Amino acid sequence: MPLPILPPIADLHDDALGQRLQRRLDNKTKPVGSLGKLEALALRLGAILGTDTPVLVDPQMVVFAGDHGLAARGVSAYPSDVTWQMVENFLAGGAAVSVLARQHGLALTVVDCGVRHEFAPRAGLVSRKIAAGTADSSTGPAMTMAQCETAIANGMALVRELPGNALLLGEMGIGNSSAAALLLSRLAGPDIAVCSGIGTGLDPTGVERKRQVLRQVLARHAEATTPLDALVAFGGFEVATLVGAVLQAAHERRVIVVDGFIAGAAVLVAEGLRAHVVQRCVAAHRSAEQGHALMLQHLGLEPLLQLDLRLGEGSGAALAWPLLQSACLILSQMQSFEAAGVSRRQDA
Amino acid sequence: MPLPILPPIADLHDDALGQRLQRRLDNKTKPVGSLGKLEALALRLGAILGTDTPVLVDPQMVVFAGDHGLAARGVSAYPSDVTWQMVENFLAGGAAVSVLARQHGLALTVVDCGVRHEFAPRAGLVSRKIAAGTADSSTGPAMTMAQCETAIANGMALVRELPGNALLLGEMGIGNSSAAALLLSRLAGPDIAVCSGIGTGLDPTGVERKRQVLRQVLARHAEATTPLDALVAFGGFEVATLVGAVLQAAHERRVIVVDGFIAGAAVLVAEGLRAHVVQRCVAAHRSAEQGHALMLQHLGLEPLLQLDLRLGEGSGAALAWPLLQSACLILSQMQSFEAAGVSRRQDA
Repeated sequence: MPLPILPPIADLHDDALGQRLQRRLDNKTKPVGSLGKLEALALRLGAILGTDTPVLVDPQMVVFAGDHGLAARGVSAYPSDVTWQMVENFLAGGAAVSVLARQHGLALTVVDCGVRHEFAPRAGLVSRKIAAGTADSSTGPAMTMAQCETAIANGMALVRELPGNALLLGEMGIGNSSAAALLLSRLAGPDIAVCSGIGTGLDPTGVERKRQVLRQVLARHAEATTPLDALVAFGGFEVATLVGAVLQAAHERRVIVVDGFIAGAAVLVAEGLRAHVVQRCVAAHRSAEQGHALMLQHLGLEPLLQLDLRLGEGSGAALAWPLLQSACLILSQMQSFEAAGVSRRQDA
Repeated sequence: MPLPILPPIADLHDDALGQRLQRRLDNKTKPVGSLGKLEALALRLGAILGTDTPVLVDPQMVVFAGDHGLAARGVSAYPSDVTWQMVENFLAGGAAVSVLARQHGLALTVVDCGVRHEFAPRAGLVSRKIAAGTADSSTGPAMTMAQCETAIANGMALVRELPGNALLLGEMGIGNSSAAALLLSRLAGPDIAVCSGIGTGLDPTGVERKRQVLRQVLARHAEATTPLDALVAFGGFEVATLVGAVLQAAHERRVIVVDGFIAGAAVLVAEGLRAHVVQRCVAAHRSAEQGHALMLQHLGLEPLLQLDLRLGEGSGAALAWPLLQSACLILSQMQSFEAAGVSRRQDA
């Protein structure tokens, strides 16, 4: 436990399928390449689902929520209570991700991975609570290795039970842009100053304070250099549960729609644990959060949207979703030059 | 004729409504500004529709098609016949815009503004043919002033009869990226070399030839400096009909979703004829076509998508459409901090 139980993740590389997909796109009634990044997206979705006519089925938006002991150090503009309050808001249908999931017919599940609050059970809420928030990573590890392993196993089990072939990653946790910045700095290398930003909206003084705290946290856990050790050191429970969900979804060749900075940090850890995870990922957007562009570059992911979003919740993943559907429809429903009787290039 | 009959277009500027919209957004359960450009879009849609709870109704995608005499000079990678063949493809449901309009529930109308082909009448096709293609603008004006006036009047009449409060602009016409480049260079000022690009996919030699031809055309019509004279000189019939459609939609305060480079050129002309047109416009995307970024900058429009599209047809407008719906839903369906019982910032 846990590495032996992590699922195998195959290399999707398949020249024959790639060529079939490219040929299919190039035969559509449009100038070659004229649908730009939508074509790259179509190729990726085909590769993930192993077909030249991919169809997205029963997409699942899962919002992983947890609290962070480090929030007590003033690294966020909002109090920790906002985590549970927003979970209630997700479930009541009034948050951005609720509205956007409804718009696009995405099933919405909220997972309590470790919120500092006792929720009444209800439809749409899954309790996988490890503890009432992580420990303060400035004074010790955010969680124990056993807690981390349980959270990863929770994420895996959760995805196993979900229908469909696409998973959209959402998250909620006051303080979790700090955890994500710590993971990025430690696992990808850049200085914490370039990895950390305003989060939910710190002013410049707040950002400076946050960076000082994060620098102390990094120094405190100098030995936590592996993906798993870093996850244990920095948290949070929602990130660890996300890691498990990502690994399981990758194993099952689901399309993984990565929202923003925090979901990206979970992918960073997951890819560190198992190669080829990123092959299954689609980056929904490039967020306004400092460090996200760097993270995407490190993961080798090209974002679909650049709308200066910095909300999290899965809102960017939901906003990008129709583009994934469009990419599939282009492959399946557009006519070929031959079938439509359209002339090719004059020099072809 | 025609300027006296152009509809009045009021200045939408309304401080009170703008503040109401901003307050409404800022009270939603999210950090202020965290939905980035989606918030700017919500403000714009509210301003256009004159309410802080805008609702998009019965959106109309209209594809304006026409042929260009200049195409005979080899300015496109494709033969002119592709214009009518693609019109058939639009109507048969096999083109990108057909697929994307279907995906998003957009009513699709194709207008023959001057295609070099006789179409059999059928549902979804409107005949407003001025002539079988414009004249070659390298040897004389693309059209007569009377033809231009008729095309503008056609566009106005057409929109008057359409239901809904949103118009998505599409176009088809082999050679029309040349007409758009000429209009941009003449009306906005930049050299034709920075205004013209690969269009449907010219190679570098082809682009060089195209630029040389366009430079000759500009010189040939040195006196065509007003928007209307430039439109007459450079064409095409689909652009002129688009201009009328844009003016009428602006007059009626419909939301105008501008696709790419050619639709943008029509907006450029329309704004030149009547101020405040651009207030009603949403730029769907920034295309890969050289000159489009410049055109958007000149119009003061911020694109929603940056997907390196260069297909036209209205494909970019269709792809951006769900973002407009999302912006409206954010305003109407998201909860306020008070209603959801969510704490505000610690420093608020």
